[in-house]
Amino acid sequence: MRTKLYLLALSGVFFLGSAFVTLTDQPFTLEQLRQLYSQPTSQWPKPDVDPDIKNFQELGVRPDPKFPKDNPYSEKKAELGKFLFFDPRLSVSGQIACASCHEPQLGWGDGKQVSLGHDRQPGKRNAMTLLNVWNNEHLFWDGRANSLEHQMRFPVQDRVEMNHELTQMEKNLNKIKGYQVLFKEVFGKERFTIQEIAQALTTFERTIVSRKSRFDRFLEGKKNELTDLEIKGLHLFRTKARCINCHNGPLFTDNQFHNVGLTYYGRKYEDLGRYHVTKRAEDVGKFRTPSLRDVVYTAPYFHNGLFPTLDGTLNMYNMGMPNLQPTTAAQKADTLFPKTSSHLKPLGLSEDEKQAVIAFLGAISSVQQRINQPELPQ
Amino acid sequence: MRTKLYLLALSGVFFLGSAFVTLTDQPFTLEQLRQLYSQPTSQWPKPDVDPDIKNFQELGVRPDPKFPKDNPYSEKKAELGKFLFFDPRLSVSGQIACASCHEPQLGWGDGKQVSLGHDRQPGKRNAMTLLNVWNNEHLFWDGRANSLEHQMRFPVQDRVEMNHELTQMEKNLNKIKGYQVLFKEVFGKERFTIQEIAQALTTFERTIVSRKSRFDRFLEGKKNELTDLEIKGLHLFRTKARCINCHNGPLFTDNQFHNVGLTYYGRKYEDLGRYHVTKRAEDVGKFRTPSLRDVVYTAPYFHNGLFPTLDGTLNMYNMGMPNLQPTTAAQKADTLFPKTSSHLKPLGLSEDEKQAVIAFLGAISSVQQRINQPELPQ
Repeated sequence: MRTKLYLLALSGVFFLGSAFVTLTDQPFTLEQLRQLYSQPTSQWPKPDVDPDIKNFQELGVRPDPKFPKDNPYSEKKAELGKFLFFDPRLSVSGQIACASCHEPQLGWGDGKQVSLGHDRQPGKRNAMTLLNVWNNEHLFWDGRANSLEHQMRFPVQDRVEMNHELTQMEKNLNKIKGYQVLFKEVFGKERFTIQEIAQALTTFERTIVSRKSRFDRFLEGKKNELTDLEIKGLHLFRTKARCINCHNGPLFTDNQFHNVGLTYYGRKYEDLGRYHVTKRAEDVGKFRTPSLRDVVYTAPYFHNGLFPTLDGTLNMYNMGMPNLQPTTAAQKADTLFPKTSSHLKPLGLSEDEKQAVIAFLGAISSVQQRINQPELPQ
Repeated sequence: MRTKLYLLALSGVFFLGSAFVTLTDQPFTLEQLRQLYSQPTSQWPKPDVDPDIKNFQELGVRPDPKFPKDNPYSEKKAELGKFLFFDPRLSVSGQIACASCHEPQLGWGDGKQVSLGHDRQPGKRNAMTLLNVWNNEHLFWDGRANSLEHQMRFPVQDRVEMNHELTQMEKNLNKIKGYQVLFKEVFGKERFTIQEIAQALTTFERTIVSRKSRFDRFLEGKKNELTDLEIKGLHLFRTKARCINCHNGPLFTDNQFHNVGLTYYGRKYEDLGRYHVTKRAEDVGKFRTPSLRDVVYTAPYFHNGLFPTLDGTLNMYNMGMPNLQPTTAAQKADTLFPKTSSHLKPLGLSEDEKQAVIAFLGAISSVQQRINQPELPQ
């Protein structure tokens, strides 16, 4: 607090030549912001977080992935999982692999509004990136799986995705000599089940992590890694732009579900999200908060891939997102009528402020690794 | 010329406060550049084009597509072609459509270094965008097809693409009642051949065009559509950066073949390009000049998708691209030893100048249309 008052006193000399950012009525110059954010995160300006936000975590350095006790990491297991990940023989047509919708060169998504699966049938939702997926407490936009091991069973069986039967897939893969050798090495037996397939696959998936970004290096002490604009964006992200209410912690996600106003209730593209899983009225239209690390590579955005650019996405948040109120008596009586999250409101960001936030999102995006499809076991 | 001298005389007053761009030893201020480029293109500063460049065309407003006399446009034919374009039943597996590698949401390419086809086998080359494909005198990176109608036969039959037989595909499609109705409407008969399939498909493909960009509106008289940085980029594009030697005309391509130094001669990724078609030594390592309209959407770049960003691409051109000289006696005697194009040389662009060129490439990229996959005839 003392530091802040001191800086505020100092600020007079910069008033004429500098841009200002407002935090709870205190304007900061860019120079002051750089000084404030060059301190340890515990001494950063207080974030603008609503009082009912639970389990708030400050932003931080990218953590290393954790592996569950009942499926620990081994290099061989991850290598085996990589083959499975790129193998179209997990699908009934023999043409669709996990990588078809989670392409390393497209931010581990597929770059499309919604994914296309068996017979190129369109799904309902945008393919989520697998970057930092080890951290997800729930999987899918609606959280219907509680572990990656659980998750992988869904796309294999989904008739608009891989359209396969788990038992048939298991049988087919067991016929491949190359896999018999690899599973023997990793699990000690040539015959393998869907459980071991899942263990190998998810071990690979947990290694899919963002590299360290310029923001991480900034936090680790390299104070010139962020530009003035990016530091302004960081401050806005934590304050006026309110992003940090949901996108918090070192991976920029609270692992919770929120309704951002895109339920399309009663209309063609209706998607009740989390409600489909829990059947609780309060979950209507809620979707999982995605991590924002590497977000510049994971377009398009939102559960339905509505916006192809961060600019459009920011404009939508700046407007407060759609917030439809029930008007007719029937709507008022309808317990399922979707409620847009109370954390969303019009932000009043100027064009420059929006660009600063976007610049900051660039600074938490790392250089992508080229992962090539391996030659598959035969 | 009088205008230029007049502006040069004027320039003194800006010398201290403005950035300069050098053209044949004459520095221009940004203000002067804006004035010069606000004139009709015929009065623009002389481009820095090598004397042996043939058929040079100045940049210009986006032209409308032309359709061949023996396959004229009709709306119904284009609509039918759109169904075929998105139909995976053109492939032997029933899973791969033209759109699989030419996805409207990914700049009508696929966003990958090289495409993946039947059984997810990787091809050798990057999927070319279909934007403005009506203008291509030759198709494919190596120009092995002379018309779109000819082109469409290759991917259908290629064993690492759709892996189908033309006659079998024709037979399968003829069984689909919905197509019988549509072909009847367009061609007057229910039974249709590969030739009519090609005519419909290519009529749709010729409608895939860039929208007008800010550069077009600038040329049409809206002189504030380009920023100072973009005008500087335009000037550099035509002069110091030398892009216009090959990327010229209203579609930013000379429709010729050039060796940009990425032949990988004698190494794992060797690709002799145009030579594979013509068997002429002078064509070793030559690839077709792609249009640069909408280039910000068509990453990654070069025939092998080597660079994921324009920044990397510009860095490579700035270095003059790889220009390997034969050193051993065997290399000197080797008539196929690749020669990098004489139009390429180190450019000496500063970081700011590179960013100006990239900004200009943004200004010749238009807002993308959302084209959704249609519901297919059954």
